[in-house]
Amino acid sequence: MKKPWGGRFSKKTHPLVERFTESVSFDRELARQDVRGSVAHAEMLCECGIITSSECRRITSALKGILRDIEAGSFQFHVALEDVHMNIEAELVRRIGQLGRKLHTARSRNDQVSVDMRLWVCEQIDAVQGLARSLQAELVCRADEHRKTLCPGFTHMQFAQPTLLAQYLLAYVEMLQRDCACLSDCRKRTAVSTLGACALAGTSLPIDPGVVARKLGLAKAFANSVDAVSDRDFAIEFVSDLALLAAHLSRLAEDWIIWSSPAVGYLGLDEAFCTGSSIMPQKKNPDVLELVRGKAGRVYGNLVTLLTMLKGLPLAYNRDMQEDKPPLFDSALGVRACLAVLAPLVKTARFDVERMARDCEAGFADATAVAEYLVRKGLPFREAHEVVGRIVADCIGKGRERIGDATLEDLVRFSKSIDADVFDVLGGSACVRSYRSAGSSGYASVRRQVTRWKRRLSRMGQLGD
Amino acid sequence: MKKPWGGRFSKKTHPLVERFTESVSFDRELARQDVRGSVAHAEMLCECGIITSSECRRITSALKGILRDIEAGSFQFHVALEDVHMNIEAELVRRIGQLGRKLHTARSRNDQVSVDMRLWVCEQIDAVQGLARSLQAELVCRADEHRKTLCPGFTHMQFAQPTLLAQYLLAYVEMLQRDCACLSDCRKRTAVSTLGACALAGTSLPIDPGVVARKLGLAKAFANSVDAVSDRDFAIEFVSDLALLAAHLSRLAEDWIIWSSPAVGYLGLDEAFCTGSSIMPQKKNPDVLELVRGKAGRVYGNLVTLLTMLKGLPLAYNRDMQEDKPPLFDSALGVRACLAVLAPLVKTARFDVERMARDCEAGFADATAVAEYLVRKGLPFREAHEVVGRIVADCIGKGRERIGDATLEDLVRFSKSIDADVFDVLGGSACVRSYRSAGSSGYASVRRQVTRWKRRLSRMGQLGD
Amino acid sequence: MKKPWGGRFSKKTHPLVERFTESVSFDRELARQDVRGSVAHAEMLCECGIITSSECRRITSALKGILRDIEAGSFQFHVALEDVHMNIEAELVRRIGQLGRKLHTARSRNDQVSVDMRLWVCEQIDAVQGLARSLQAELVCRADEHRKTLCPGFTHMQFAQPTLLAQYLLAYVEMLQRDCACLSDCRKRTAVSTLGACALAGTSLPIDPGVVARKLGLAKAFANSVDAVSDRDFAIEFVSDLALLAAHLSRLAEDWIIWSSPAVGYLGLDEAFCTGSSIMPQKKNPDVLELVRGKAGRVYGNLVTLLTMLKGLPLAYNRDMQEDKPPLFDSALGVRACLAVLAPLVKTARFDVERMARDCEAGFADATAVAEYLVRKGLPFREAHEVVGRIVADCIGKGRERIGDATLEDLVRFSKSIDADVFDVLGGSACVRSYRSAGSSGYASVRRQVTRWKRRLSRMGQLGD
Amino acid sequence: MKKPWGGRFSKKTHPLVERFTESVSFDRELARQDVRGSVAHAEMLCECGIITSSECRRITSALKGILRDIEAGSFQFHVALEDVHMNIEAELVRRIGQLGRKLHTARSRNDQVSVDMRLWVCEQIDAVQGLARSLQAELVCRADEHRKTLCPGFTHMQFAQPTLLAQYLLAYVEMLQRDCACLSDCRKRTAVSTLGACALAGTSLPIDPGVVARKLGLAKAFANSVDAVSDRDFAIEFVSDLALLAAHLSRLAEDWIIWSSPAVGYLGLDEAFCTGSSIMPQKKNPDVLELVRGKAGRVYGNLVTLLTMLKGLPLAYNRDMQEDKPPLFDSALGVRACLAVLAPLVKTARFDVERMARDCEAGFADATAVAEYLVRKGLPFREAHEVVGRIVADCIGKGRERIGDATLEDLVRFSKSIDADVFDVLGGSACVRSYRSAGSSGYASVRRQVTRWKRRLSRMGQLGD
Repeated sequence: MKKPWGGRFSKKTHPLVERFTESVSFDRELARQDVRGSVAHAEMLCECGIITSSECRRITSALKGILRDIEAGSFQFHVALEDVHMNIEAELVRRIGQLGRKLHTARSRNDQVSVDMRLWVCEQIDAVQGLARSLQAELVCRADEHRKTLCPGFTHMQFAQPTLLAQYLLAYVEMLQRDCACLSDCRKRTAVSTLGACALAGTSLPIDPGVVARKLGLAKAFANSVDAVSDRDFAIEFVSDLALLAAHLSRLAEDWIIWSSPAVGYLGLDEAFCTGSSIMPQKKNPDVLELVRGKAGRVYGNLVTLLTMLKGLPLAYNRDMQEDKPPLFDSALGVRACLAVLAPLVKTARFDVERMARDCEAGFADATAVAEYLVRKGLPFREAHEVVGRIVADCIGKGRERIGDATLEDLVRFSKSIDADVFDVLGGSACVRSYRSAGSSGYASVRRQVTRWKRRLSRMGQLGD
Repeated sequence: MKKPWGGRFSKKTHPLVERFTESVSFDRELARQDVRGSVAHAEMLCECGIITSSECRRITSALKGILRDIEAGSFQFHVALEDVHMNIEAELVRRIGQLGRKLHTARSRNDQVSVDMRLWVCEQIDAVQGLARSLQAELVCRADEHRKTLCPGFTHMQFAQPTLLAQYLLAYVEMLQRDCACLSDCRKRTAVSTLGACALAGTSLPIDPGVVARKLGLAKAFANSVDAVSDRDFAIEFVSDLALLAAHLSRLAEDWIIWSSPAVGYLGLDEAFCTGSSIMPQKKNPDVLELVRGKAGRVYGNLVTLLTMLKGLPLAYNRDMQEDKPPLFDSALGVRACLAVLAPLVKTARFDVERMARDCEAGFADATAVAEYLVRKGLPFREAHEVVGRIVADCIGKGRERIGDATLEDLVRFSKSIDADVFDVLGGSACVRSYRSAGSSGYASVRRQVTRWKRRLSRMGQLGD
Repeated sequence: MKKPWGGRFSKKTHPLVERFTESVSFDRELARQDVRGSVAHAEMLCECGIITSSECRRITSALKGILRDIEAGSFQFHVALEDVHMNIEAELVRRIGQLGRKLHTARSRNDQVSVDMRLWVCEQIDAVQGLARSLQAELVCRADEHRKTLCPGFTHMQFAQPTLLAQYLLAYVEMLQRDCACLSDCRKRTAVSTLGACALAGTSLPIDPGVVARKLGLAKAFANSVDAVSDRDFAIEFVSDLALLAAHLSRLAEDWIIWSSPAVGYLGLDEAFCTGSSIMPQKKNPDVLELVRGKAGRVYGNLVTLLTMLKGLPLAYNRDMQEDKPPLFDSALGVRACLAVLAPLVKTARFDVERMARDCEAGFADATAVAEYLVRKGLPFREAHEVVGRIVADCIGKGRERIGDATLEDLVRFSKSIDADVFDVLGGSACVRSYRSAGSSGYASVRRQVTRWKRRLSRMGQLGD
Repeated sequence: MKKPWGGRFSKKTHPLVERFTESVSFDRELARQDVRGSVAHAEMLCECGIITSSECRRITSALKGILRDIEAGSFQFHVALEDVHMNIEAELVRRIGQLGRKLHTARSRNDQVSVDMRLWVCEQIDAVQGLARSLQAELVCRADEHRKTLCPGFTHMQFAQPTLLAQYLLAYVEMLQRDCACLSDCRKRTAVSTLGACALAGTSLPIDPGVVARKLGLAKAFANSVDAVSDRDFAIEFVSDLALLAAHLSRLAEDWIIWSSPAVGYLGLDEAFCTGSSIMPQKKNPDVLELVRGKAGRVYGNLVTLLTMLKGLPLAYNRDMQEDKPPLFDSALGVRACLAVLAPLVKTARFDVERMARDCEAGFADATAVAEYLVRKGLPFREAHEVVGRIVADCIGKGRERIGDATLEDLVRFSKSIDADVFDVLGGSACVRSYRSAGSSGYASVRRQVTRWKRRLSRMGQLGD
């Protein structure tokens, strides 16, 4: 098949090179965006008087026909035509003849692929944000349901202080919120049209890049043609954002994998979200969560791929940049799959509230409450901390499992400030009831958080009324 | 030395553990922020009635004294006190006695280190942006100076089209501009006070985290205490931004290393920015640029470190998070050093404008201009491209080094649309003169860009009038 | 479709989960190895008396039939059957009925996938080594051809000292040699059979893992069943080795991209190994080399993916480990493609020996030779270095382009040790002729290296007589 | 301070450049190796007749004096002298005058730093291996002690099958063994002398690189001078090996962090290996394990730094390569610290054998044993698996917590092959007793493993008699 750039060449491309350099096997993912870009480009050429209205109509109508075939799966891509751009242009020429050969006027694949990718990333950002909202909505629902469910708060995987399950669930809602904000910031920088930068220098033809931007619904056109074709920042920023999102999901996955271990037993996943073992008949495994955790590695690796590709790359376009697509596509589709499967998994999981409540009484998790009690009695905190530390050590030495098992006499020996009312602050429920600071894991704070999130999300159409 | 948390412990920390877990050898970098945070915390405790005004005054005044000693280098840090927080608290107690033991009320190192780091990152963002502005200013100055200097435009390291040197220099200004925008977005998410989240659950004491935020000049306080102490997103986002910035600098470095190779010869660095060889007496090496290029790897690695640390980390705080500091510090200080040294290097470099102009005539870089000429004569672009491709092949076959060496008769054989006026579009100057599209490498576009940047930067105080 | 592990489940797998957890879309790459492993397993079950000879014959013969269909492309994989293992087992049962249900005796997918991957990696190591040998052979051929071709030696991209082109080419042969050695070491650790570890604990059935190892041609069987199913070290080591190999190829690519830039002009790639531009008719781009350079990023990213996946993963098998396959496959196939396309590219490239020779005279590259001349005259090296440094500075000041343009009188002013015979050591040829140390870039050293490599490679069947 | 390479320069180095390019603040780590290399180099120069015996004696004796001062901490390093090499050479000249200026004959910092690093890496490999052996020894001791301790075997963090604690501990011994083997392979490739490659081309002076290699105890000298100074493969391979080792340690850390969580309760760390909380008086945190887990990220990041640095780096030496040292040093010292602190931590940890034994009875972990029982009764495994799956589902439905709670009548309903002897295979002890395959978690297999490891390690001097 004759290469579109073959005029200057006297030899045929080596078959190994054809296979090695083709990208249509993966950049066909951009077919829809490529046609959108070409339609806008043709309309601009028309507005600028470079092609006529009737030429424009024939070109754009043929392009839309090609798109229909692509979406129907009946379009035939050819590796010999290298990439999605040349495949579509060649088909356009096949359909409307000589006129089709005008489309590539004042355009290079360098600017074309950039705008295709930018359109694609904008769409993906919208999709990821939508899915993140849905997952937030499920988490908020479960938090609302468990606004009063005790849950041991962990630091270092040790019992730290009694908390509310809702507070844990809402922590993930906060993380996803930051992810959505990052993605919105990224979208601002992505929604720039680069068509018209041509190879790297712009053109002597009277085009108007601003028209293309407007037609594509992008905020503005590029400012510098060399930068326009050299730049993959938007892809890297997007994958960075996805990497952080994936990290958040991996943390949720880790927590829930541990919680659903029978050795811990806080959580039971719905059978529809588990798989079994080929050898062990009793197994019900949290595979979905494990894969979510593992996929963080995929996105991290993709980010490294993109950063490495760009490192020390001379201006302007270099073919290394073709390697940007597989990691970009894989990251977006992977994260979307994780978000999509987590929402119903979260919705259907059952918490063992008794077991969590029981563990809120264990491990002296109310020790901090006693220290704060002593502060209210006038002790400097650091002294209060020491007193309670010694109480705990004494309990352990005596085989007592909780401070509440000590007598008042025992306790007074450690500090005269301790009174009978100390027993009011002991135990999981008392602790949680006592939290009063803004953003804390107390009942009021959690209720306020849930209310705020329900309002926010329902404004975004994510929660029914 | 008695551990501040030692009450519950009956054994001494193993010496290996003391060395392995200490962080004061590196987190002393946060001393200034730690004191700032403690002062704000004390003032809040006072406003909330937990300590008295006079206690507050004594605490904050002692803290400021400690800070002065730290800045004077006379403060003695002890590894046995683990970290910067405990070192400062212990010294406070040493200075003002029992009262100092009240400072840690309603506070944990978990929220304390978070706010310290957030303050530090905000300051670093300001510093990095300031340095990036200075580098932009130097690049714009050189672009202004070279608004009419021809420069071969490269794609794939091949001569692509003649461009203006200014267009290349301004491409880096655009990159740095995106970096600054990313950093501003990151700063929004960083400037959140997390003090008051305490260990992970908030507190039963009547504190007000919003007061602390206000006193620290941070936009708001945390919304969820579990998230507040588990979160290092701001550090990761910051280092992601720095990684992209470092990638940009590595591209500039690569271009300039190649350009300053005598085999290419476009650029001469000032001797004050080069070093020599211990064996080869004639060497004048662009070491600075090479180190800038190499440092991209450092920042990439640091980003991987942080992302890996966070992957699959259960909520809430875990000690793994102590490993966030060395990569964070190294990234910020490394990128700042690169920016600082590049600005004067850029200012003092000399371009060999003759050599660049000469190469604009070489390699048939005006071929695209001829194709666009044919488009203006009515040929579809794809056909024009083929015609010119064959002209180039013919020239090469005949040993001609440029299209302009062919006669009109020669050219007409390839297309009847070619006329004598084709010679007006040939050659580097003609090409550059012809670029007319917005953002292109043409004279007018470059002038507009330079003007816009000078205005923008002088608004930010980066350029004299 | 009924899950093979479905006995204990009362609910159907959620469709999202089915899609999210399936691996057959990519692990079918292991089909051949999976059948090999199953055949060996069946034969072992027979030897150990767990199935009869006739059962064994029917199973293995059916398995081989399945393999033929897979290789013919007529095998139908079902996503509902999750992975390659269950697809093959289900088909076996379909073909030979109840007997097929005996194959999974004393086996889990945990050990099965491990052995499949190990067999696959061993085969890939063999293939990569074969291709690396071929590339070495081409490089040695070109080195042999250019044993006397001068080439400027670069450090810091500056002219350092005159060298021989062969020495540069042979440097890459050395790198590839280390890569092959690393891969051989990796192969030792990979060639371990893990079948028989079952889920993680081994089995109560009287199997013999050593028999399986022998039948698969693997050096030994696993030592510890928990380790056997938790271990992906072989995959990580393999991808680490590929990352280094890819780094080497990226260095060759970088050098050759720069050398083939018309601004440098040392190298012309054959047209069959270049591609053109959709807009610039004259372009002939080294896309292959750029993609090779870019693919280093892919392999690095894949390595990060694998390392991240393994980080902090509890024993024994976890589903995260399914994410090991895409990066593993992509790395091996990517590096193989690079090696395969580079060999003919290297073979067909043409060097511009005049241009390289010319640059050997430039940039005072003979300065070190003069310093060593002075050492032979009795000056301490450091002093000689200074003398020559001043000579070079003087030449530059006077506009002289080489030391040889100075007169003897000029030179003597810098050191009385300089005599008329100094002119014998000046210039590119003289320098190269003078190198006499082992491994140096002198004629004799290069000849010895070429001879040794030709002997080594021909022993391995990579070079004709 | 006058630069040793300053002869050709007329300007002074810019102060920012001096700070930016210096490496002595970190490469002083190589001082010992640098002196070793210089001594060997001087002795070679003497053997080759380039300096006299008496000159050699004076040089080497002065070098050793310098080394003593360095080791005593009384040596003054100067940033203006750039690096460790120039600092030592300048001091040599200060001590022995003009003669000192002869040392750098036939040597460049390019080959000098390479050999210094190679010597350093060899020493580090020895040290890491020694520490890994010690950790193996502790693990084997604990395994020996717990040869009969039941421990629930996990896959997917679910109870899989009963195992022996020893089998888990020995799995880590296997991993460390592979690490040691990788490091030994790396050492072979590191122990190559590169001194004599000089800048990149070798030299015209009659040196013998083989002599230097011999004197340094390195296996051989470099084969190709350009490769010798461009190569950092040994550093990357070493850090790759450390990354895998760190991954292994992170897995052990993760397991033990989870096990020492009171929610699981299998493990109690000794107080001397824990730290407390500044706010929660009861806390006893496994900080050491968390830091070990987190440090995996550091080593991964360092590996990425090194790989990125090398990517696309033209031959031969470039200053980017100076950035290899911080990640190299940090990786080795970090991993050594982890290994050193883990050995006594492992030694002093206490396992809650009752709790582990109890969990071996839970979660139907004996289900696979029943399936294998049915295989022995003649059922095909896949059918046996289904039968047991249904039994488990039935038990869960009826609220039974273990198969053993069912009656024979209940069980027979699922398969007629079930007999009263099925109760012999139920329960944790019965399961473990039944494992008979090589490498399994059965008593005999574990005893054999312990014996083999004790023998191996005591051969290496790691275990008492």
